[in-house]
Amino acid sequence: MLIPPVDEAVRADAYRRLDRLTKPRGSLGRLEPLAAQVCAVQATLGIRIVQPVGIVFASDHGVAESGVSAYPREVTVQMVANYLQGGAAISVLATLQGIDLWIVDAGVDGDCGTHPRLIGAKIRRATRNFVDQPAMTADECTTALQRGRDVVEAVAAASNTLILGEMGIGNTAAAALLMHGLTGKALIDCVGRGTGLDDAGLERKRQVLARALQRRAAPPDPLELLAEFGGYEIAMLAGALLEGAARRMLILVDGFTVSIAAALAARLDPGVLPYCVFAHCSSEHAHRALLDDLKVQPLLDLGMRLGEGSGAALALSVVRAAVALFTEMATFEGAGVSDKGA
Amino acid sequence: MLIPPVDEAVRADAYRRLDRLTKPRGSLGRLEPLAAQVCAVQATLGIRIVQPVGIVFASDHGVAESGVSAYPREVTVQMVANYLQGGAAISVLATLQGIDLWIVDAGVDGDCGTHPRLIGAKIRRATRNFVDQPAMTADECTTALQRGRDVVEAVAAASNTLILGEMGIGNTAAAALLMHGLTGKALIDCVGRGTGLDDAGLERKRQVLARALQRRAAPPDPLELLAEFGGYEIAMLAGALLEGAARRMLILVDGFTVSIAAALAARLDPGVLPYCVFAHCSSEHAHRALLDDLKVQPLLDLGMRLGEGSGAALALSVVRAAVALFTEMATFEGAGVSDKGA
Repeated sequence: MLIPPVDEAVRADAYRRLDRLTKPRGSLGRLEPLAAQVCAVQATLGIRIVQPVGIVFASDHGVAESGVSAYPREVTVQMVANYLQGGAAISVLATLQGIDLWIVDAGVDGDCGTHPRLIGAKIRRATRNFVDQPAMTADECTTALQRGRDVVEAVAAASNTLILGEMGIGNTAAAALLMHGLTGKALIDCVGRGTGLDDAGLERKRQVLARALQRRAAPPDPLELLAEFGGYEIAMLAGALLEGAARRMLILVDGFTVSIAAALAARLDPGVLPYCVFAHCSSEHAHRALLDDLKVQPLLDLGMRLGEGSGAALALSVVRAAVALFTEMATFEGAGVSDKGA
Repeated sequence: MLIPPVDEAVRADAYRRLDRLTKPRGSLGRLEPLAAQVCAVQATLGIRIVQPVGIVFASDHGVAESGVSAYPREVTVQMVANYLQGGAAISVLATLQGIDLWIVDAGVDGDCGTHPRLIGAKIRRATRNFVDQPAMTADECTTALQRGRDVVEAVAAASNTLILGEMGIGNTAAAALLMHGLTGKALIDCVGRGTGLDDAGLERKRQVLARALQRRAAPPDPLELLAEFGGYEIAMLAGALLEGAARRMLILVDGFTVSIAAALAARLDPGVLPYCVFAHCSSEHAHRALLDDLKVQPLLDLGMRLGEGSGAALALSVVRAAVALFTEMATFEGAGVSDKGA
């Protein structure tokens, strides 16, 4: 499915309308280009946020056995249960924001059970450890991308706004190698503390990732790179991003790992990026550099580093405010307010 | 009315609870100290945001006749009408966020008419031009402070959260002189473009303010300073801040002008600051320096420079998210999730 371009003529109209609203020009700051982006994405000035859907893709990573995370691998399956029981940050934020939340088992190393909000899409119980061998086969990679698309098709038919999150012990390690491969930045600039490594843990993570690159240098082809070092949740996220953009959805991209999926999706089809709002800047070391590389500005900077889509869910309230201001504020003429220099 | 101290024992309890929630420690970033602050303010771990009240204090400034704003003075009364008709940014955000919004005529140079949401508290039709004489008399200053307190008492009895905003053509000029007087910073570092001055306008504003300081150097006493160079809305804001803190309300401080009122209130009673959340950093030149001087960190940084309480209203959604996460997330024990290092 091809990604249609966003509507640049409508974006230009949106800026003209913004200048007629009862406020000094540009005084809503980032909310103004944000509203204009939503207009371009929805190809109308009559923008609305309809039934926002949140999807958290969860998976395990073979590399976790090499000790690259502050948390043990079983946390992935435990957190899936926590999402479904409503106790996790994203569960709370989804309820607060009226987000229709779905959890996808992309490759959790354990039995996630059944739940009406759980989508079983497991490729395998965890990727292979990319220190020793490719994380996934080419077939698994293609299948994961397609399942990401299928999930969006299944749950987002009535929605125009997608909130994407992830969970997977070890996945910032995978994301670091993907960033290195996609951006050409030195490995050390792509590796961070994830959910909370100390200095020794960070050094071990760097060494583990350097060993993976000794086994095989990052391949330039994005699908090969994804299969070599990626994760099932990252592949599904890339598929979900491509599908969301193809459906002209506004896509709220969460932190480091989802941004990596967006960078990867953009390598497959650059048309995906104009549909993306980069919701926040994670305190994960490399996220800022990745966003700079993508030439995008994050909306919030609150020092969050949780994942799960929590930053994107929080940013939805800013998007909603931008939409409300754009569609509901009076114009200078309508309100009888003197414009600048009048 | 004295300001009680916030509850530091409850704040410490709040941090302990935050570390037991199902997330890596500190991974909610700024939302964690924010939740703990709300606990300290409300003196309980059972925090709630109850009936948030927004108050926009509007007034005119004699100095506007010297040409310190990009907009003509009649905009103040026009915007008051716009607030009441629901067409302004703060009107839209108040509706979106469920904020009980009140507009106060503190000293508008015109007839604001009557409206159920308009509170007449006019001291005078605009302050005097502080280039030639003190902006207000000592009596007017005391009366304005008290009226600010009275307004909070009148409208916020059933609320525990106060959103403060302002409107007044010329008021960043007054705020600049107050900042100079309160912080001792050079005038040039206190003056910005307000709602959108060009380079020539900014230079004129600087010259006008320098002339005011030639007439009288900024007096060290905060009430004298306020009477000399302040505005009726700024004085009422300072009173509202003191009253809100005395009532143990959480106070969301908007941009540059409200922050100046908070700095002034803190000079009268330093106990006010622990009740304040500095909602955002305005793109007004001097705001960042003022916040640094107050040793506070703004929550949002979205390049907004509108005033009206718009940044504070937007930040309320972040505060609500922090409260929901704090009170509704599961603990590691409760959810059966392995904690770090387990």
